[in-house]
Amino acid sequence: ACLSEEDPDPTRALLQLCVDGHYVAPGQVHSDLLQRGMCCNYGPLGLELKTTLLEQWWRSVKRSRSTQVFGISTPLQTHHRTSGEEGDPLVVDVKILNQLLLDAEELSKAQIIQRIQTLLRLSTSLRTNLLQGALEQYSSWVELVNRRLPFGLAESGLSVQPLDGSRGEATHTSLVWFCSPQSSSQWLDHWTRLRLRWWRKFALAPSEFSSRDVPEKELQGCASRGVKIVYSFPWGQETLENLWSLGDSELLQTYDGVRAKIQCRDGRKLVIPHVVSVVSNMDRGMMAYMHNSLQLLKKHDGKQKLYQSQRKVLKLHPVLAPVKVALEMGRGATLELRQVCEGLLQELLEAGVSAWPGYMDTTSSSMEQLNTKYDQMGVLFTVVIDDKTLESGLLQVRSRDSTVRELKHVSEVTGFVRRYVRGAHNM
Amino acid sequence: ACLSEEDPDPTRALLQLCVDGHYVAPGQVHSDLLQRGMCCNYGPLGLELKTTLLEQWWRSVKRSRSTQVFGISTPLQTHHRTSGEEGDPLVVDVKILNQLLLDAEELSKAQIIQRIQTLLRLSTSLRTNLLQGALEQYSSWVELVNRRLPFGLAESGLSVQPLDGSRGEATHTSLVWFCSPQSSSQWLDHWTRLRLRWWRKFALAPSEFSSRDVPEKELQGCASRGVKIVYSFPWGQETLENLWSLGDSELLQTYDGVRAKIQCRDGRKLVIPHVVSVVSNMDRGMMAYMHNSLQLLKKHDGKQKLYQSQRKVLKLHPVLAPVKVALEMGRGATLELRQVCEGLLQELLEAGVSAWPGYMDTTSSSMEQLNTKYDQMGVLFTVVIDDKTLESGLLQVRSRDSTVRELKHVSEVTGFVRRYVRGAHNM
Repeated sequence: ACLSEEDPDPTRALLQLCVDGHYVAPGQVHSDLLQRGMCCNYGPLGLELKTTLLEQWWRSVKRSRSTQVFGISTPLQTHHRTSGEEGDPLVVDVKILNQLLLDAEELSKAQIIQRIQTLLRLSTSLRTNLLQGALEQYSSWVELVNRRLPFGLAESGLSVQPLDGSRGEATHTSLVWFCSPQSSSQWLDHWTRLRLRWWRKFALAPSEFSSRDVPEKELQGCASRGVKIVYSFPWGQETLENLWSLGDSELLQTYDGVRAKIQCRDGRKLVIPHVVSVVSNMDRGMMAYMHNSLQLLKKHDGKQKLYQSQRKVLKLHPVLAPVKVALEMGRGATLELRQVCEGLLQELLEAGVSAWPGYMDTTSSSMEQLNTKYDQMGVLFTVVIDDKTLESGLLQVRSRDSTVRELKHVSEVTGFVRRYVRGAHNM
Repeated sequence: ACLSEEDPDPTRALLQLCVDGHYVAPGQVHSDLLQRGMCCNYGPLGLELKTTLLEQWWRSVKRSRSTQVFGISTPLQTHHRTSGEEGDPLVVDVKILNQLLLDAEELSKAQIIQRIQTLLRLSTSLRTNLLQGALEQYSSWVELVNRRLPFGLAESGLSVQPLDGSRGEATHTSLVWFCSPQSSSQWLDHWTRLRLRWWRKFALAPSEFSSRDVPEKELQGCASRGVKIVYSFPWGQETLENLWSLGDSELLQTYDGVRAKIQCRDGRKLVIPHVVSVVSNMDRGMMAYMHNSLQLLKKHDGKQKLYQSQRKVLKLHPVLAPVKVALEMGRGATLELRQVCEGLLQELLEAGVSAWPGYMDTTSSSMEQLNTKYDQMGVLFTVVIDDKTLESGLLQVRSRDSTVRELKHVSEVTGFVRRYVRGAHNM
């Protein structure tokens, strides 16, 4: 992203673009959450981008050659756990708490304590990571591989995170990888390579994604090695993904040390698997791609050095771009043109190509204004249907990246865009 | 589903099948949650089925002809709301609560109350539905349609639900539809028709999905009309989807009656939109399809009336079946066959066809046992690769639904399965 060199406040400019492009709802509170890598109120384009990122993550973990990864889904709340033992946030019944405050005058101290204990008994814990759920599910799925290593359990979902003395939430993806003790360090390297390659695959400036080893003194819990994949934001480096080599102690702890429940075959030996945990924050990942793909280009209109003469283009990778095609109506018989637009919109949506029905917006805008708007949204192609389309079937297709306009037949558009995105995917 | 007539305890049999087919983790607690339409620990097949259902829901709401629906995503936790006013569950810091209990001896009653008030101030609310979030986001996205009715905001995600004095969670999909006052009743009928058609589209026995009007005396809050889409489970009818015509009062309430913020254009008039809410529980929906597609067929082996002589086949719609192809290895040179299996697995996964690497399981099972297993998992096609495949490229493809085995060339399999599923989708 060329943003930082051009804009006096690149953070503000990036957050504003997220709002202007309909990725995030307007309001300071949403921008703050976004900047901290938390879920906020996403708009239609933000939701589409996040969904696509998660899909691509699932594709990559499931398809990595000759590995066995099973997807699982565990609940957000845990029951039947010793409440709060692990410092997880608790969900409590607000009615009991409010009633307690109302009754406080008449209650003795002992009665108040008793009410709080009742409250605790009926509480549930909210998860703060996806690792624990996968460890607890290990014994349910290890038979799927006949206790043969290695294999993995993958999950994506929300985890509750601390935020200013209170809490927010982030969309995590987690791969918990079970392998033989002597291979765990190699697997950590393997997944680091794969994951860094994945982040860079969709980047415009891949070098802003990098990995670094966690220094030994910063290792926490039972981690024997750690790697972070980080991104350089205008406000500093932030961690997108954590990879930990955790040994066998977390698994042993989860199963109270009952080795028979957890041991696996490594060739002819029985071993307690070692765990490699690979966790990324996809809310922050979205933000990294937004920043990475934003380009400020000078307009060729002679008015150099004016802020207004910059073109902001969100050059998201064709696979990630939330809107592949925007449909606009030019001059001509409104009713007929609208029918062509609707027909093409349906065709695109049915082919799984996300399209934006710009023709429904009846505010009159110049083509220049529309291009500016769609470039900020990161729309890959803008299609203009006008009275010439009714005569010849030809319409104008403008590319975000080349800014070139081409004439294409209405029947070619869907196939052309699909091939373009597929081509970019396989590059 | 023919289950209820054949099995003495159809509920138990259904829940057992969910476990045997790797849809749900073993354990009574997961089965209980599942039966109540709550999220539980899903296994690889359950996760895939739920993901597919959600995808199909998004396709259907986005593609319904000439309507404008925008996807949004709102956080699970709300900050800055008067805590607990609405009876939502609260998330509190367990450390403060535990410390309070530890210190209780030395604290006065007033101090305890003060600590509880601090706890409340730092708490967040968990959502119990997706409606409120969409109403709060209405003003952010209404400009996308130039305040022109109708349009909708769609979201899928978790909502916290009461469960035995405590709480669980369910995966909801929500369409909040904003329309002109005089059209709201027609829109309610429109969405009921569309949604019932959607549920039935993937059903083996469509008549077990039905809709019924909510009697006037059962209407809650500001609902003026309501419709439920229900499914007949062995343990009784349960609601899969609620459609409510809510009028304008919820929207007015959310915006403190400030009409300028919410009014829209209906032709030339300015109106306060009416809200139609369409909410379904996809955890329960999954369970409905599991039940609906389970068939108990008598085996043609002469041993009639024995429980063992029944074939259990999970005839999930081809679009919903979580595993389209299971790959098995027959007799022959192990290493070479394994390479063929891996090649085909990669090809299927890259084409987006979910495949089960049965060949990795080295437990020796007869073809009969494998077919029984895959029928219970609802696997659409079982492919057997053996030494003949190495000679001629031919392999055996068995269909779950016809039980017919056909020889196909290894290069044809992926295309064949894709066409089969697409064909079933368009039917």
